[in-house]
Amino acid sequence: MDIEEFRKAGYAAIDSICDYYANISQVPVKAKVQPGYLIDQLPKEAPEDGQRFDEIQKDFGKLILPGITHWQSPSFFAYFPANSTFECMIADLYSSSVSNPGFNWICSPACTELEQVVVEWAARMLGLSKDFWGSSGIGGGVIMGSASDSAFTAAIAAREKALRRLSVESGVKAGDNGQIEIPDKIRQEYGQKLVVYGSTQTHSLGAKAALMLGLPFRAIPVSIDDQYALRGEAVREAIEKDKKDGLVPFLVYATVGTTSTGAVDRIAEIGEVLKEYPTTFLHVDAAWAGVAYALPQYRESLRLQEVNEYADSFCTNFHKWGLTTFDCSIFCVKNRKDLTQALDVTPPFLRSKEADAGTVIDYRNWQPALGRRFRSIKLWFVLRSFGVNGFQKHLERGIEHCQRLTEIVSQSSKFEIITPPSLALLVFRLNPSSSGGGKVDDDKLNLLNQKLHQRLDTRYDIFLTQTVLHSIERNVFCIRLAMGGVNTSFEDVQRAWEIIEEEGERVLSEGDGLVLG
Amino acid sequence: MDIEEFRKAGYAAIDSICDYYANISQVPVKAKVQPGYLIDQLPKEAPEDGQRFDEIQKDFGKLILPGITHWQSPSFFAYFPANSTFECMIADLYSSSVSNPGFNWICSPACTELEQVVVEWAARMLGLSKDFWGSSGIGGGVIMGSASDSAFTAAIAAREKALRRLSVESGVKAGDNGQIEIPDKIRQEYGQKLVVYGSTQTHSLGAKAALMLGLPFRAIPVSIDDQYALRGEAVREAIEKDKKDGLVPFLVYATVGTTSTGAVDRIAEIGEVLKEYPTTFLHVDAAWAGVAYALPQYRESLRLQEVNEYADSFCTNFHKWGLTTFDCSIFCVKNRKDLTQALDVTPPFLRSKEADAGTVIDYRNWQPALGRRFRSIKLWFVLRSFGVNGFQKHLERGIEHCQRLTEIVSQSSKFEIITPPSLALLVFRLNPSSSGGGKVDDDKLNLLNQKLHQRLDTRYDIFLTQTVLHSIERNVFCIRLAMGGVNTSFEDVQRAWEIIEEEGERVLSEGDGLVLG
Repeated sequence: MDIEEFRKAGYAAIDSICDYYANISQVPVKAKVQPGYLIDQLPKEAPEDGQRFDEIQKDFGKLILPGITHWQSPSFFAYFPANSTFECMIADLYSSSVSNPGFNWICSPACTELEQVVVEWAARMLGLSKDFWGSSGIGGGVIMGSASDSAFTAAIAAREKALRRLSVESGVKAGDNGQIEIPDKIRQEYGQKLVVYGSTQTHSLGAKAALMLGLPFRAIPVSIDDQYALRGEAVREAIEKDKKDGLVPFLVYATVGTTSTGAVDRIAEIGEVLKEYPTTFLHVDAAWAGVAYALPQYRESLRLQEVNEYADSFCTNFHKWGLTTFDCSIFCVKNRKDLTQALDVTPPFLRSKEADAGTVIDYRNWQPALGRRFRSIKLWFVLRSFGVNGFQKHLERGIEHCQRLTEIVSQSSKFEIITPPSLALLVFRLNPSSSGGGKVDDDKLNLLNQKLHQRLDTRYDIFLTQTVLHSIERNVFCIRLAMGGVNTSFEDVQRAWEIIEEEGERVLSEGDGLVLG
Repeated sequence: MDIEEFRKAGYAAIDSICDYYANISQVPVKAKVQPGYLIDQLPKEAPEDGQRFDEIQKDFGKLILPGITHWQSPSFFAYFPANSTFECMIADLYSSSVSNPGFNWICSPACTELEQVVVEWAARMLGLSKDFWGSSGIGGGVIMGSASDSAFTAAIAAREKALRRLSVESGVKAGDNGQIEIPDKIRQEYGQKLVVYGSTQTHSLGAKAALMLGLPFRAIPVSIDDQYALRGEAVREAIEKDKKDGLVPFLVYATVGTTSTGAVDRIAEIGEVLKEYPTTFLHVDAAWAGVAYALPQYRESLRLQEVNEYADSFCTNFHKWGLTTFDCSIFCVKNRKDLTQALDVTPPFLRSKEADAGTVIDYRNWQPALGRRFRSIKLWFVLRSFGVNGFQKHLERGIEHCQRLTEIVSQSSKFEIITPPSLALLVFRLNPSSSGGGKVDDDKLNLLNQKLHQRLDTRYDIFLTQTVLHSIERNVFCIRLAMGGVNTSFEDVQRAWEIIEEEGERVLSEGDGLVLG
């Protein structure tokens, strides 16, 4: 394809994206396809000869769009939103045009420096303390692909930090470069005794990070009374139990805004407990809710001050509610050496005079992989085009939708809200006795709500996800409705609720004896 | 930004990319900026109010482009190429427009199925055996962000497989689901005794994967006589030494096309040795050279048959030489359960009826992170637009450039070629005695070539990287010239060579007594 063919194809792509967004509310949110729909339509092998690009391009509309679950649809209420904005589409286009793997300052100075700048813009907008800012020269932030990547990177940093600490305790001295080399015997002795902690509400990224490191993950039970938040004493108990078994606590994942209910763990309590265990590292996963720190009125309930005081690292995904097209996970640490001491492997071909002089950041040493996309343009465009005010207004809209829906659901005689609404997330269940009739036991309600979810799951005009709330007291099967989609109006939320009510009625009217009685 | 504003801004972005490519050969390949150039020009905080998008967009040209090291420049010969094509820019634009995190089949059927299809197209085009194809139902492939991600994922899979094997040996039986649960005592006993092997020529991804797992990496020395390839006996020796110390071999990284010289490890030899050590897993990293399997005439020298016979997993980056914009690393395994048994953590909110029925792939269980970009569109567009023939022609062009340059350098009286040219990579050094004059010792030559590299490194019109070839015999400092850039013509290669000769002459004429004598 030459330059003029690209211009033509590029315009056509822009036009088709305009059409897509003009019609997005008319299209079912969930793809109406069966497993294998696309595999069956495509040849088994790449063509021998090149094909006309206009034909290829048409196939995006013909073959791909019918198999897309439209995360940008106004009727998408599943998981959490993954906002994509026009600003980011253009930013991604620029990024692809100067494609570079961004691992060194010298291999892409703009890529490295823009990331330093916009991550700090984000940190300041959210009210993260200076300790997390790159300009501190000690802490700093990096854009990762996902909150899982951030959490996993924190785990590696935490493990190495714990082992360095244990090395020092066993008498190892720093080398000429001021660094502690972890002796093999320390790894042999403690490497497999380290334990990761979170709660039963921690995102699966916690269990997965532990799995990847081959270490146990303790999912500490939480209580309904605490609104599913992890408490300091529960952490202490779990740690003490492990210490009695000769194990070593090294990492706690605390969450601000859990996936299931938006619960906010008690960061200060946990942080105070961890002071007693100096091998520990506290990572705060605020993948979804963290962007809401941009709204000062929510900082207290989301425990920002506690994060600033106690967390070693922090993550929030601008690619969820934060208007920035996937992928853009902001990962900030108070001590960048926690990362570089755990991840720096510099062979000769990656050396550069700027890095040797220590005047630049080489982001490859802040992350697991070597190569990385130029992601910061997206966030730069978003924060400039929306401004802090526009960003805040977007968040407030989602929260307002949730508040208005909460009022409606509160008045329902068939549904009950399970936990207080959290920002733009509402968790509820069908409960025909919610208006005060005869009480139905939880097992029956769980079955009833599974049926409701199964029904909702067969529909294409709405997309919601289920969750099971595990707690000390009981397990509750619920439906989640996550608002904050960039194209979602309150009318869309209302329509969703009508569908849920309708399906709820059907489940109840099936009268299979499960419930009534 | 509304739809019509996006249309306007999108056209403008396409136009500016056309201008960029029309002028790319006129612009210095390396950014003429000093550390801090961008940080100093940008405000410390995001603006309060939104800004006009046309102004923001202009800043991409005004602030970012001057700080870009142009990987798409015809004079980029550093590292390996990171080809970007117009086809992929459009593909990435489509991907951003339907942005979705792609972790489940249901959350984006097209995203999952297109990936299954095009990864198999790639595997077939490269001649990988059916065992690696997804349609086998047993093996299959996935697109990762980088070869580091692929290698690291292989490491996790390998560790879990080794520990399952050790569990079985110690009497553990499969559970009702047919799976072996690794008991805690096996992890305690062996978890920290596992060892990763590669050579001194293995990419730093090997050492980094081991570092991330907290396990040792053995960089086995190679010999000049073997052209820097890792041999089976050397692997056996390293393993035996570790076994004597009570350690357990679990993973070998073999390379097809090393970064430094394009060396091809002796896969069959290594594979035969590994048969004696059933806890081992063989990952073949062909990050750069693997795409050249698309050319049947190179399959033998690149040991494709051996990869097919002995490798457990294989990786090649289409985002290097393979015309596909970063990121697109193809990672194939012969047994997909090696991945899912090591990475599957499925909480209720990620369950779906399709996954429960086992009829679909949920790619999140094939990789470390949960979320993932829709990357397969890029590769789909490339393979269709170029066709296998066009893809092959592109590769042949790079190889031909290298062959022609090899002839020129062979005739030089001041330079010597260090290893036989590998595909599109030439490694050489300045050596004034190369035409048969008085012999100069290696230390002096290394210093001389460091000076040459320093000189080349100060230039902006060409970008090359250094390497140090470690071997049993000696260490050789060389210059690498990596061809295969999508915009590079042979005239560009010739011009690069003229610059290198010119700088070489200058270094020699400085006559500091290092060399002559």
